[in-house]
Amino acid sequence: MSELVERARDGQARAVARLISLVEDESPQLRDVAAELAPYTGNAIVIGITGSPGVGKSTSTSALVRAYRAQGKRVGVLAVDPSSPFSGGALLGDRIRMQDHATDSGVFIRSMSSRGHLGGLSWASPQALRVLDGAGFDVVLIETVGVGQAEVEIASMADTTLVLLAPGMGDGIQAAKAGILEVADIFVVNKADRDGADNVVRDLRNMLGLGGRHSDAGAWRPSIVKTIAEKEQGVDDVIEAIAAHRDWMVSHGELERRHKARAAGEVVAIAMGTLREKMREMEGHASLSKLADSIVTGTSDPYVAADLLVAELASAD
Amino acid sequence: MSELVERARDGQARAVARLISLVEDESPQLRDVAAELAPYTGNAIVIGITGSPGVGKSTSTSALVRAYRAQGKRVGVLAVDPSSPFSGGALLGDRIRMQDHATDSGVFIRSMSSRGHLGGLSWASPQALRVLDGAGFDVVLIETVGVGQAEVEIASMADTTLVLLAPGMGDGIQAAKAGILEVADIFVVNKADRDGADNVVRDLRNMLGLGGRHSDAGAWRPSIVKTIAEKEQGVDDVIEAIAAHRDWMVSHGELERRHKARAAGEVVAIAMGTLREKMREMEGHASLSKLADSIVTGTSDPYVAADLLVAELASAD
Repeated sequence: MSELVERARDGQARAVARLISLVEDESPQLRDVAAELAPYTGNAIVIGITGSPGVGKSTSTSALVRAYRAQGKRVGVLAVDPSSPFSGGALLGDRIRMQDHATDSGVFIRSMSSRGHLGGLSWASPQALRVLDGAGFDVVLIETVGVGQAEVEIASMADTTLVLLAPGMGDGIQAAKAGILEVADIFVVNKADRDGADNVVRDLRNMLGLGGRHSDAGAWRPSIVKTIAEKEQGVDDVIEAIAAHRDWMVSHGELERRHKARAAGEVVAIAMGTLREKMREMEGHASLSKLADSIVTGTSDPYVAADLLVAELASAD
Repeated sequence: MSELVERARDGQARAVARLISLVEDESPQLRDVAAELAPYTGNAIVIGITGSPGVGKSTSTSALVRAYRAQGKRVGVLAVDPSSPFSGGALLGDRIRMQDHATDSGVFIRSMSSRGHLGGLSWASPQALRVLDGAGFDVVLIETVGVGQAEVEIASMADTTLVLLAPGMGDGIQAAKAGILEVADIFVVNKADRDGADNVVRDLRNMLGLGGRHSDAGAWRPSIVKTIAEKEQGVDDVIEAIAAHRDWMVSHGELERRHKARAAGEVVAIAMGTLREKMREMEGHASLSKLADSIVTGTSDPYVAADLLVAELASAD
């Protein structure tokens, strides 16, 4: 195993891919991998990219990859689609556009899926990020469709979250879900050459002015950047905005706070997976059978029995 | 609370509805309710009804309700749609057809939803069943759309599971998912006046002859019944088949085995909910913060930290 980690840290894409497959497969070997990677993690700049379908997430991701590559940085991309448990449907399709990077050994692109039962993408995604971080990627882009709670969870892995919007997508920012807007550190108004782009910017300014969490003194006030990702226009402004946000986070202790929150989330997800596993092992045990008996005969109820089971699970192992 | 349980056992629909709302709301009061109901549970005949959309589940359920009512039995119906977390979409719509029973105080019909986080319908459905069972319903029908794993879980709550098929639904039984066929104790070929009904029956016979679990000597061999639920034809045959299956289960110890398995599943679901809750409480604790620190600094990894967290969770409380 050590050799695999070494090769991944050497920048061999196949070794990195193999490690992420271990995550998807919920391999028991992950324990060793995580232990070996631990000293090398915490250095990647992690950027979340989210937004409704059609705003240009993949094009923007691709443009950011190119820009960071021009700076000589190694870049990893995780495409995560929480709405599709088995593979990143739409994202996978869009990825074809990323083929310009296919021959660049400084770029690693992967669609995340979760085949397992330990907790799905909220279990697997942070560990895939950990692999890329530990393997020495300078920048990791996490691209995810902006839908629902899972997406917010995944955005919480990022140091900086970009929320992409585009004009003509329904009714401006109203079309974006409130939960998505809340996670934004930087708003990127893409397709800025289209009618209505300025309206989107104005709506965003109004919203940010109105308060919410952003009205706190001392809080980060999300920046707004216009891009035309297809023409690679405005991408440098995005890179600059990310750097400015990072500087702000460092000087306000926010980066450390986010890293801690991410680590805590990871621990909780793995712990829940462990408990699920232990519970599954319990299912054949005599003690559970006895508890079931007491319920069938009406001498106990499922709550009392569940308490006993939890106590037993705690004392086992 | 005692009074509420008493009124539910007296047959007051509003009290029963209130108890099931407690389940949906994951109310802490459920503990007391479960304890009070425990001595009265285990008497209901629990019938699962599943099948693809369009085979006539609601019409069949309604016909069965009528038939059991004619025998003077009190009947409860739980409509469960695992594909819709918040309310039983299609089933809810179909339920309108069940309005013939609306004025019958011997019938209680409820669409199950799960608003909570403790484990969704696999947590809530068995407890709703427990309420109906404990409230003294002689027969409980659990109607669920035949899709995926959740459906199989829910079917596992039933003493007898009916799988409904209908001719002209794609390619006969091939259209039904293998997982659904596996859970059948009785196959009901509904819309038997349509072309192709005999083909469905023949296909089923072939499949049952070919083996699988049904080829074991001493195992129940699923019966096949033809119905035209809209015209209430064949419903008595279904009732008879259910009774025959029950007799077989009693004489083979299978009913007891199923009741035990159901109880065990309930205990596990509640225990997992409890653990999820405990974990949530942990999230503000200093110990998790310390573990997160050790990960951020690279002195530990998430697996080691998760082990420590599980150990702490076990020793707490």
